[in-house]
Amino acid sequence: MVGGGQLARMTAQAAIALGVGFEVLAASPTDSAAQVCARVRIGDHTNWDALRDLAAGCDVITFDHEHVPAGHLTGLARMRPVRPGPHALRFTQDKVAMRERLRGLAIPVPAYAPVRALADVEAFAADFGWPVVLKAVSGGYDGRGVWVCRTLPDAAEVIAHPVSVFVEEHVAFARELAAQVARSPYGQAAVYPVVETVQREGICHEVIAPATGLPEERAFAAQRIALRLAAELDVTGMLAVELFETADGLVVNELAMRPHNSGHWTIDGCVTSQFEQHLRAVLDLPLGDTRALARSVVMANVFGGNDPDLYSRYHHVMAADPGVKVHLYGKQVRPGRKLGHVTVLADDAEQARDRAGRAARYLSCGRE
Amino acid sequence: MVGGGQLARMTAQAAIALGVGFEVLAASPTDSAAQVCARVRIGDHTNWDALRDLAAGCDVITFDHEHVPAGHLTGLARMRPVRPGPHALRFTQDKVAMRERLRGLAIPVPAYAPVRALADVEAFAADFGWPVVLKAVSGGYDGRGVWVCRTLPDAAEVIAHPVSVFVEEHVAFARELAAQVARSPYGQAAVYPVVETVQREGICHEVIAPATGLPEERAFAAQRIALRLAAELDVTGMLAVELFETADGLVVNELAMRPHNSGHWTIDGCVTSQFEQHLRAVLDLPLGDTRALARSVVMANVFGGNDPDLYSRYHHVMAADPGVKVHLYGKQVRPGRKLGHVTVLADDAEQARDRAGRAARYLSCGRE
Repeated sequence: MVGGGQLARMTAQAAIALGVGFEVLAASPTDSAAQVCARVRIGDHTNWDALRDLAAGCDVITFDHEHVPAGHLTGLARMRPVRPGPHALRFTQDKVAMRERLRGLAIPVPAYAPVRALADVEAFAADFGWPVVLKAVSGGYDGRGVWVCRTLPDAAEVIAHPVSVFVEEHVAFARELAAQVARSPYGQAAVYPVVETVQREGICHEVIAPATGLPEERAFAAQRIALRLAAELDVTGMLAVELFETADGLVVNELAMRPHNSGHWTIDGCVTSQFEQHLRAVLDLPLGDTRALARSVVMANVFGGNDPDLYSRYHHVMAADPGVKVHLYGKQVRPGRKLGHVTVLADDAEQARDRAGRAARYLSCGRE
Repeated sequence: MVGGGQLARMTAQAAIALGVGFEVLAASPTDSAAQVCARVRIGDHTNWDALRDLAAGCDVITFDHEHVPAGHLTGLARMRPVRPGPHALRFTQDKVAMRERLRGLAIPVPAYAPVRALADVEAFAADFGWPVVLKAVSGGYDGRGVWVCRTLPDAAEVIAHPVSVFVEEHVAFARELAAQVARSPYGQAAVYPVVETVQREGICHEVIAPATGLPEERAFAAQRIALRLAAELDVTGMLAVELFETADGLVVNELAMRPHNSGHWTIDGCVTSQFEQHLRAVLDLPLGDTRALARSVVMANVFGGNDPDLYSRYHHVMAADPGVKVHLYGKQVRPGRKLGHVTVLADDAEQARDRAGRAARYLSCGRE
C-alpha cells in the first residue's frame, strides 16, 4: 500500500486477520501506519525509485491516498497489478475529468465550469448566482482545496494562488450522504448501507449508519449510482461516493477509490469492514458480507485539542461508556488534526450519536 | 508481551486500535506475532537477558503463554509491573498448587493426588477406579501433558518419562464449558458469556457462545467461580476458567491467565474482544462491554492438513459464505497444527455451527 496514513494503519489490522503479507510505503517512520506495520519502506510517493522498489517486493499495489503522479501509476501498472488502476484513479486526481465523465453517464453532478481567468467565475456566477464554490482540480481533501466565494473579490483572492481551480454551483443540500461499494477485478461488487456524513468546514465529523429517515428508494438510488460508477470507471477496491441530498434528488459531490472516513464505522459495525473488503477486492478474493451488526452505528472523529496527551483521557472515556470503541491513529496532537475516531453501536441513532459525540468531544478536549 | 504466538498476534491488532505501543519477545522472526508487529525482539522466554531488555523498554509486561521461569518472573516484577503477577501465574505453572488453592477456596476440582511412584497411581485408582488421568504438573497445553490411563501398565509407561506428574480422577462430564473474566489492578472485573468448548483429544475444536441450553443459574455459577478466582488469585488481565459440566454441577479443570482459545469468538462476536480487554486490564484502563453482537457466535479452529497453501483455499470458503470471518496466524502448515480459526455470527447455534464447521473443515482440508 502506497501511503502510511491511518487508512494504511487500519488496513494493516485487516491484513493480520487474513494472514496476508502487507507492506507500506510511508514518508516517515513516525507515519501512522509505519508505527504498527512489520514491513515498512520509507520513501516518497512521488519518487519513482521508492515506488518501483515497493512494487518489486509485492504481488499487488494499492493506495491509501490518490496523490501518486499519473506517470508513476502507469509505470507501476507495467510491473504489477495496480488496484485501482491508473485509468480509474485518474478520476480522483482530476475533478473536472471526473465531472465530465459523470455527466457523460447522465449521473447528476453540480453545475461546473473550468476557470482560466476571473472572468470565467464572473460568467458562471451570472448564470448560477453567488455564492459559488472554487475547487482545486486535484489534490484537495478534508476541506483543503475548496473555497466558498460569496463575491468576486473572494474569488479573485483564490485565483491569485498558483493552483488550478474550477468553479461549481453552491448546492443547497439538505444533508450529505455517502455510498460505499467494493468491486473486485473479477467484477463482483458489494454495497454498504448508505450513511449520512456530518461535515463542518468540509471536514467529516460524524457518520450515521444507516442514514436516518432515508426513504428506501433514495437509498437504493445512491447504491445504484455507486455500483454503476464502480463498474463504469472499472474501480477495483473500495469506492466511496459522496452525495448531496437535495430537494430534487441526489447529486454526486466527490469520489474516493480507497477506504474512506465515511466507512470507518464498518470496523466495529459491519460483518466485513471496509479495510478487509478493500484487501479482498484488490486481491480478487470473494467479497464479504456488508451487513451492519446493530440497528444504528455512529462514528465520530477525534480531533486534536490543547491536551498533547490523549492517552491520559482514556480512563474517563472508557469508564463513562464501556461500549465506546476507541481508535487512535498514533498521530501527534495538533489542534484540529484528525487523530482518531470512536464508534458506538446502539438500538437507535439518537442514542448512538449522543454517546459517540460525547466520547469524541472529550477525547478532542471539547473541540469536536 | 512475552511470546510471539497467535495470542500475541491478535493482541497486536487490538493494540493498533487503542494506539498503544506494543512490543513482543518472540523466539524467531517467523513467529506468528513477529510477522506482523512493528516492534519485535528476538529472544528466548527462558533467557534472563532477553526478558530484562524487553522490560527495560516497556511500561508493563504481560504474556502470551505461562512458560517464563518463576525466578525470571520475580526478577521482571522488580523492574516493571508484571501482569498477571508471579504470585498469580504460579497457579498456571504448577497444577498441583492450583488444585490445592482451589480446594482451599472450596471450589470443586477433580479428585487428585501427587505421584512419586507407580504405587501412588495404584492407590489412587483403588479409591477412584480406572481410568485415571495423569497430568504434567507444569507446561502442558493443547492435549500435551495429559494421559488418560486405563490400566496400571499404561500409567507405568507415562511415569517412565522424566516428567513430573500427578494423578486425577477421570471426570464423567456431560460437556466442557469455559468462563472468561478480565480483571484490572484497580480491581474492576468484567465477565464474558459462558461458552461451550468442544474438544477432541484434548484440543479445542469449536466454541459455542453462549453455551446452548445452559440454565441461567449454572451460567451464573460459572461466572461467579471465574470472578471469585480472579479476585482470590489476584489475576490481572484475562482469566479463562475451563470447567467440566457434570451431573453434580461444575468442576474446574484448568486455568489460563491470558487470552485463550475459548475467547477467540469475542474478536468478531463481542463489543470488546478478549485481546482488547486483556490490554485494557494490564494497562489498568476501565474494562469494555462484554456483550455479544449476535444471538449465537461459533468459532471453529483451523488445523493443518495436506495442502501447504491454505491461501489458495480462501476463494472457495469466502465465495461459499461471505459472512465467515477468517483468521489465519501466518503459521507454516503441518498436519494437525492449529493454523487459524473462523467465526460465524448467526441467529441460532445450529446454523452458526454448521457454517463455521464447514468453513473450518474446508480450510483444514477435511481434517477438522
